[in-house]
Amino acid sequence: MIILLNKHIPQSSFEKIIDKLQNFDYEVINSTVQKIIFINSEIDTYPDHIFSAMPGVEKIIRTKIRLPKILKDSKSAVEIKNYHNLSIPHDLKPTIIAGPCAIESEEQIVNLALKLKSLGVNFLRGGAFKPRTSPYDFQGLGITGLKYIKTASVKTNLPIVSEIMSTQQLELGYDYIDIFQVGARNMYNYELLKELGRQKKPVLLKRSFSATIDEFLQSAEYLYANGNNNVILCERGIRSFETQTRNTLDLNCVAYLKNNFKLPVIVDPSHGTGLSSLVKPMSQAAIACGADGLIIEVHETPQSSVSDSNQAINISQLEEIISIVNTIYSVIHAERIGNNSVMNTTSQTVTIK
Amino acid sequence: MIILLNKHIPQSSFEKIIDKLQNFDYEVINSTVQKIIFINSEIDTYPDHIFSAMPGVEKIIRTKIRLPKILKDSKSAVEIKNYHNLSIPHDLKPTIIAGPCAIESEEQIVNLALKLKSLGVNFLRGGAFKPRTSPYDFQGLGITGLKYIKTASVKTNLPIVSEIMSTQQLELGYDYIDIFQVGARNMYNYELLKELGRQKKPVLLKRSFSATIDEFLQSAEYLYANGNNNVILCERGIRSFETQTRNTLDLNCVAYLKNNFKLPVIVDPSHGTGLSSLVKPMSQAAIACGADGLIIEVHETPQSSVSDSNQAINISQLEEIISIVNTIYSVIHAERIGNNSVMNTTSQTVTIK
Amino acid sequence: MIILLNKHIPQSSFEKIIDKLQNFDYEVINSTVQKIIFINSEIDTYPDHIFSAMPGVEKIIRTKIRLPKILKDSKSAVEIKNYHNLSIPHDLKPTIIAGPCAIESEEQIVNLALKLKSLGVNFLRGGAFKPRTSPYDFQGLGITGLKYIKTASVKTNLPIVSEIMSTQQLELGYDYIDIFQVGARNMYNYELLKELGRQKKPVLLKRSFSATIDEFLQSAEYLYANGNNNVILCERGIRSFETQTRNTLDLNCVAYLKNNFKLPVIVDPSHGTGLSSLVKPMSQAAIACGADGLIIEVHETPQSSVSDSNQAINISQLEEIISIVNTIYSVIHAERIGNNSVMNTTSQTVTIK
Amino acid sequence: MIILLNKHIPQSSFEKIIDKLQNFDYEVINSTVQKIIFINSEIDTYPDHIFSAMPGVEKIIRTKIRLPKILKDSKSAVEIKNYHNLSIPHDLKPTIIAGPCAIESEEQIVNLALKLKSLGVNFLRGGAFKPRTSPYDFQGLGITGLKYIKTASVKTNLPIVSEIMSTQQLELGYDYIDIFQVGARNMYNYELLKELGRQKKPVLLKRSFSATIDEFLQSAEYLYANGNNNVILCERGIRSFETQTRNTLDLNCVAYLKNNFKLPVIVDPSHGTGLSSLVKPMSQAAIACGADGLIIEVHETPQSSVSDSNQAINISQLEEIISIVNTIYSVIHAERIGNNSVMNTTSQTVTIK
Repeated sequence: MIILLNKHIPQSSFEKIIDKLQNFDYEVINSTVQKIIFINSEIDTYPDHIFSAMPGVEKIIRTKIRLPKILKDSKSAVEIKNYHNLSIPHDLKPTIIAGPCAIESEEQIVNLALKLKSLGVNFLRGGAFKPRTSPYDFQGLGITGLKYIKTASVKTNLPIVSEIMSTQQLELGYDYIDIFQVGARNMYNYELLKELGRQKKPVLLKRSFSATIDEFLQSAEYLYANGNNNVILCERGIRSFETQTRNTLDLNCVAYLKNNFKLPVIVDPSHGTGLSSLVKPMSQAAIACGADGLIIEVHETPQSSVSDSNQAINISQLEEIISIVNTIYSVIHAERIGNNSVMNTTSQTVTIK
Repeated sequence: MIILLNKHIPQSSFEKIIDKLQNFDYEVINSTVQKIIFINSEIDTYPDHIFSAMPGVEKIIRTKIRLPKILKDSKSAVEIKNYHNLSIPHDLKPTIIAGPCAIESEEQIVNLALKLKSLGVNFLRGGAFKPRTSPYDFQGLGITGLKYIKTASVKTNLPIVSEIMSTQQLELGYDYIDIFQVGARNMYNYELLKELGRQKKPVLLKRSFSATIDEFLQSAEYLYANGNNNVILCERGIRSFETQTRNTLDLNCVAYLKNNFKLPVIVDPSHGTGLSSLVKPMSQAAIACGADGLIIEVHETPQSSVSDSNQAINISQLEEIISIVNTIYSVIHAERIGNNSVMNTTSQTVTIK
Repeated sequence: MIILLNKHIPQSSFEKIIDKLQNFDYEVINSTVQKIIFINSEIDTYPDHIFSAMPGVEKIIRTKIRLPKILKDSKSAVEIKNYHNLSIPHDLKPTIIAGPCAIESEEQIVNLALKLKSLGVNFLRGGAFKPRTSPYDFQGLGITGLKYIKTASVKTNLPIVSEIMSTQQLELGYDYIDIFQVGARNMYNYELLKELGRQKKPVLLKRSFSATIDEFLQSAEYLYANGNNNVILCERGIRSFETQTRNTLDLNCVAYLKNNFKLPVIVDPSHGTGLSSLVKPMSQAAIACGADGLIIEVHETPQSSVSDSNQAINISQLEEIISIVNTIYSVIHAERIGNNSVMNTTSQTVTIK
Repeated sequence: MIILLNKHIPQSSFEKIIDKLQNFDYEVINSTVQKIIFINSEIDTYPDHIFSAMPGVEKIIRTKIRLPKILKDSKSAVEIKNYHNLSIPHDLKPTIIAGPCAIESEEQIVNLALKLKSLGVNFLRGGAFKPRTSPYDFQGLGITGLKYIKTASVKTNLPIVSEIMSTQQLELGYDYIDIFQVGARNMYNYELLKELGRQKKPVLLKRSFSATIDEFLQSAEYLYANGNNNVILCERGIRSFETQTRNTLDLNCVAYLKNNFKLPVIVDPSHGTGLSSLVKPMSQAAIACGADGLIIEVHETPQSSVSDSNQAINISQLEEIISIVNTIYSVIHAERIGNNSVMNTTSQTVTIK
């Protein structure tokens, strides 16, 4: 960080600034037109205004961007402890999280889960608490829905990913949910993030449709700073001027995150496109740019889904997607996972005991 | 609403649709290429997918937009009961809500409140719970801050507007806060909105920086549907590609809301621009397009504010703004408030006993 | 500008950099971790990459933003020489440019012009060359349209504002058009801007719906750099995620431009909202935030306009707008134009001899 | 299309509407609340306002979106006639267009072209006419640059892709350029598109950073409607609120175009990300979602490029990209090109005789 000071800064003001720098490695330089303080220590978590508000300070220049701590310390795999040490990402396959937008009935979720299991899906998703734009829209089955999905989970040994929107729902859902999903609308709900930070279970944090990558990482940092480093980031599309697709899936973000951080990153091509016909090509693209996995809305008869019926795909479409993204994953990660696997993984199924 | 059906829809499917329409006024028409159901009743709150998901349905066409109930029933003024029947908007003046971004000390808020009162400000704002992008930034003084602002409120008789971000903060702040502010980051926090809907105190609902006008109204509807119709809408800037200003203040939204609805609408030119130099011209514009009032960040020495120091204005800048927006308000509302007042209001001060 | 160099930059590389700085006032400072070059001269028009591409250069820091020259030299009023020294802005009134989206017939434009003249409108607008999204939409009457509008101009003494989209149209329209309009779609058409820069006639440059303020100013600079400083900037709405209005009118931009530059700035509330019902309130807002004038689509029977029928207003609506914006203008500019005028201008009409 | 009429529309108005429908297959239906006209013919290219502006018309409902003709008639491959019937896309490989942002010298472009050729690149790109935000930035070498690239093309037999921004440049460049590139800034430059539509050479049309998919297709339609159906669409990133990357590469658009249309679509990951480190992962994603090829900025020493130095990659990075996208392409198109090729294409080089 560089602090540019007015050449004629009063001595008392100058000393106040220097006071704040006692714990840092800095040096003061006098140019002919300005006084400059160079700070060589890392003071990434110091907000700019501590200095910028002081009299005589002309400009604060950060020579490095203010990175969240999560950058350095995050581990590369999130482990799901209750279930056989399942981790995200796997070594050989992208992680597949699938299920209906909303849990509709016990029969629906159990039958679907059995089919998903047979395709090699790794996690079962299903909404019990639904954030809906209108208060008159279907708001989910709540705790009843969680009981249904738990039955499906027990029968299939698939861990459960489900969204919560408040501390109260966190408590209600604690015994049912294996990975807490924070939806796009609650990425800025810092009070919820703080509470989730105090839990042990993993959190799947979706990017808000209006969040910059920096804000997305800072929200993850809320979890981390409160003690939970089991964080999975999820890109699910941002809002742009384009209306042909429901959102604009920002795969640049995924490539950027995987290039710079060690956190697992998954992609939601269902919300990211809003069109079932685009789920397959965008699943392919997501894995091809480095995503560790996918979260996909699947329904046995998509057209009769009680919500988001335009974007859900059916079982056989999912099967095709899993097959091709497995191959692409092995191409992308060929060096890491060995050349032999490229040929062999196409039809392989993950066994979760 | 018009439902276009496949010409060859099976009779059983057709009957299922008709079943759902028993309470509505509809008629069925057979064109040569399609079967069409015309629904003449208002079914605004019925989500499309109830019908669109049924077999044989080709397209749902809403002939009117799906408006929230709030449109028809909302009253034109929100009343603040505890404090002398103060209402928003006033008859003769725009409502001015002013104060610091964050409550910093008792001395700060009391001294500032006394000065604001003398300028004719109507409400005192100040943040005790601060939503900050980074978990390491200053998060507000919490309950201590609320005690400070309460002291200022008692001394000046100015009601308090302050933000809460969770149900827990709602309870903590209930005895201190007169108008609960829901910040832009929590406009989609439906669980919080539901809880606020069950309260009697007014709610100042800020538009998310990524919310469409429709979503903004639907969030207001969450308050209304749960029993609270004391709702003040606040435009505070949306996110666009422009970076010279912190946000893009969407006054189109204000004009649209005032044209179509009876709810009070205020504008936040501080966040809406992010630049103190633009607060005055955009305050003028806000009142000129029909806003009922303004919420402005004011600090005695803006450059030393602990947060948002770039956008706060000082006391004398506020004084100028109040003077000129009072005049503009009287020009805009000349018919309603009588021609004489145009000339007389410029230097007039609202008296809150 | 500050150039941060690697501490261990080879002497030959360092000398190459210093070579480029012979005409500037600079000094070299050695901190313990970096070598720094401070450049005190203004080198605003030097692109960063001249330095950033050189070996050993770590970072270029501009301490001032790279402002176009137009900032310093632009005059505050554009003069329209052919027509009685009419200038924008006027001393006492906002400039009103009005007319149909497209010229439809001689009768239409002449009748409309006579009525506009009687309301105190200052310039007549009308499209002869229309940029349309689809090649099958009505593309304007071309040179025939220009002949019609010239007739209207001669009868009313109203100068003509009309859009051109190519060098060829510039030549075709030269004898008819008094102010060349560059539409939003051509703001980045630098070849056209260069050619217009070589002309003497004023240019009304519309901001692209996707242009940052900086890009908008740089496009103006293309005109200026090629010799034409008769530039009027026009904000006409940017593209955002909001779909209820056709565009998002960015009045922040107007306030910013008027705060920082001397160029005349006008606002197009017709395209800026896309809704005739919002033209009045947003005209009010535009003048209230400092705009020098308005360009408005007017049609005798808006619902029968061949294009943009949703956003055109009729004659009596325009009359109301002119009356109220005249008053707001006098309130905003009271100091400059004297207090007396505030009361007198409401019903006053600009006389263009 | 459905036209909803007022129940009480005057007979004369009704007849005027019917007059316009003489060439279409329609029927008129009287519901109890409205008169409705059903039009069964395709009238896709008829703009709405022809009807919406007529008295008594309440609403126009398009039951199909207004698609450009290009949808139905476009061929799946653009052929480059002068050069050995090279077509885009190829049967077995994605098309690779590579070269520097700007042509800097004959030596630079010839040396680079030889290396690109050896990697299997199919087309040589290089800017001679550069659209730059500031008039003071380097504007390209112009005709001299085209002569240099022609030399490189002759030596390597690589066809030339280069941008033109005006009709004048089209004429100047005609003998040098094999595929005319229309840059993002000129996608709305309809006069240029019309002129290019009259040429025989293929056009690579880049999407404006603010264009909807519909506008993108309509711009292509300008070429088509004027006689040129040799159109290659190019997604190069749109403008969003995200600033970490230069643009937001909208691969949803690519998937949508390939799903619905037969036109070749390529992707520019250099401008689409603005960061050389993201060019590889986003190239992979582009091919994985169905793109037919890539256009990539390559420089022998990217850090010394006179423009866009942050996003250019070097030769060895390009080599890696070509290898991996060839494999992904063969996975995605396995059915079409036969299973055997999947294994064999990794190291294969396209031979252009």
